[in-house]
Amino acid sequence: MTIFAERDPTLIPSDPLMLLADIERRLDRLLPAENERDCVGLAMREGALAPGKRIRPVLLIMAAQDLGYRDDAGGLLDFACAIEMVHAASLILDDIPCMDDAELRRGRPTIHRQFGEPVAILAAVALLSRAFGVIAQADGISSQAKTQAVAELSHAVGIQGLVQGQFRDLTEGGQPRSADAIQLTNHYKTSALFSAAMQMAAVVAGAPLESREKLHRFALDLGQAFQLLDDLCDGLNDTGKDAHQDAGKSTLVNMLGSKVVEKRLRDHLQRADRQLASACDSGYATRHFVQAWFDKKLATVS
Amino acid sequence: MTIFAERDPTLIPSDPLMLLADIERRLDRLLPAENERDCVGLAMREGALAPGKRIRPVLLIMAAQDLGYRDDAGGLLDFACAIEMVHAASLILDDIPCMDDAELRRGRPTIHRQFGEPVAILAAVALLSRAFGVIAQADGISSQAKTQAVAELSHAVGIQGLVQGQFRDLTEGGQPRSADAIQLTNHYKTSALFSAAMQMAAVVAGAPLESREKLHRFALDLGQAFQLLDDLCDGLNDTGKDAHQDAGKSTLVNMLGSKVVEKRLRDHLQRADRQLASACDSGYATRHFVQAWFDKKLATVS
Repeated sequence: MTIFAERDPTLIPSDPLMLLADIERRLDRLLPAENERDCVGLAMREGALAPGKRIRPVLLIMAAQDLGYRDDAGGLLDFACAIEMVHAASLILDDIPCMDDAELRRGRPTIHRQFGEPVAILAAVALLSRAFGVIAQADGISSQAKTQAVAELSHAVGIQGLVQGQFRDLTEGGQPRSADAIQLTNHYKTSALFSAAMQMAAVVAGAPLESREKLHRFALDLGQAFQLLDDLCDGLNDTGKDAHQDAGKSTLVNMLGSKVVEKRLRDHLQRADRQLASACDSGYATRHFVQAWFDKKLATVS
Repeated sequence: MTIFAERDPTLIPSDPLMLLADIERRLDRLLPAENERDCVGLAMREGALAPGKRIRPVLLIMAAQDLGYRDDAGGLLDFACAIEMVHAASLILDDIPCMDDAELRRGRPTIHRQFGEPVAILAAVALLSRAFGVIAQADGISSQAKTQAVAELSHAVGIQGLVQGQFRDLTEGGQPRSADAIQLTNHYKTSALFSAAMQMAAVVAGAPLESREKLHRFALDLGQAFQLLDDLCDGLNDTGKDAHQDAGKSTLVNMLGSKVVEKRLRDHLQRADRQLASACDSGYATRHFVQAWFDKKLATVS
């Protein structure tokens, strides 16, 4: 079953698996070298290199390519790794005892369970600051694009982004809240970083403001869809995370039921696809990837 | 008693108190607006705006001015605020229960005691990421200088900077360690951020590589002097921090006694001053400021 109406079957999309391997190889090189005496470095590596979907960096690269950018010097790959480092840092912090106190992440014990809470917090801080440094030192990208990327990423992490999402989830997640309030929290938790990834792709590719706005709206809908999928998957055993972590939390699945949520998810995806199609006219790799990715995941929950 | 041999009494240094007021006014505007419902924003404000020495941002501005830079657009002030935000974030994290578990900072209850541990951690992350965003959006500074500043700050925060210093302090502070090991920890804890401040001043002012290297060496010695002063002051009641927090820690004061440490401190300051004098030939404000600042502080411990 496919979600999107139009697509051109003659176009061969970039291979996401090859991209994923490129990202992981580069991440490995951008992180501190493996050294058994350096716990914080090991925790950074474990947090960022443990098997993950890498959906944010893959989307960043594909979108830039769909906007016509060719990454001859490797700077785009570095931007993608920066996004993944920020995501990894946010997962480490989400899991610590005073936040969600989670035991499992990406199929392994959480970072604080492996290295202790102080090292987990320091590794998250080091990953975050490394992300900004990686952007600043990316090859083949103009200083202007880099400063715009830093500004976008800073916004997505801070009080209008991941930090706000985590705070709202912590303070409101256990209480009754409206569907709008949940959607707003999901915006901060998920859409904000997707938007930063898309804006970073756009500034690298030198996309016009109009495309940037469309990519922003794409990211907002994609983030909502992504969070709804995450909620639908809670309770399945193959997520690599603590199962039933949302039990007792006021999620849309608990409030509206999974059928309604799945319908909402598909609506978000359709809107996301329309924005993406309109923003990128040089390629369709991102659309193919998003479609295939959600098709596969939704097949497991339907 | 003065530490430095040469100075030109005809030169009037910039007024550090006026600079401090400028920095605090600008910090106030760069932080989230005061909103009682936004705990994380309030914690960020409290962490960054509570009375502090502001020595890092003052030095950054003075050094850039001594290198000939005139801050017509306000970007230098923003760079200075970014350094202070990073410093404030590091203090918040140093104090949390799983790190130093401190009760007092800057004369007030620590941030986690005022707002709880999760909010303290989120406020620190938000301050850190805001610092990078403030650099990226500073007015009147070239994108190239901004990306260099981001790279310097990223380095000073991460695994080769504050994070490493905090980790070493946590894991080695309670054990016997060599004077060299203590000096290395102090390098990460203190010198790294002083160096970033000096490099940010230098890139804004377009200083040549030779000056940048001298400013780096100035920062290394200044950082050591600063940390030794901090150790000498531990136990005094007017630091605004928990008194006797270093009791049982292997500091140089505990190892060598305060007389030897004071001699070392003065040696570091003299070396620092020589580097600074050689790096900045357009002004002496930074030298005056450092001298006056240490003279005043040392008078309280001698």
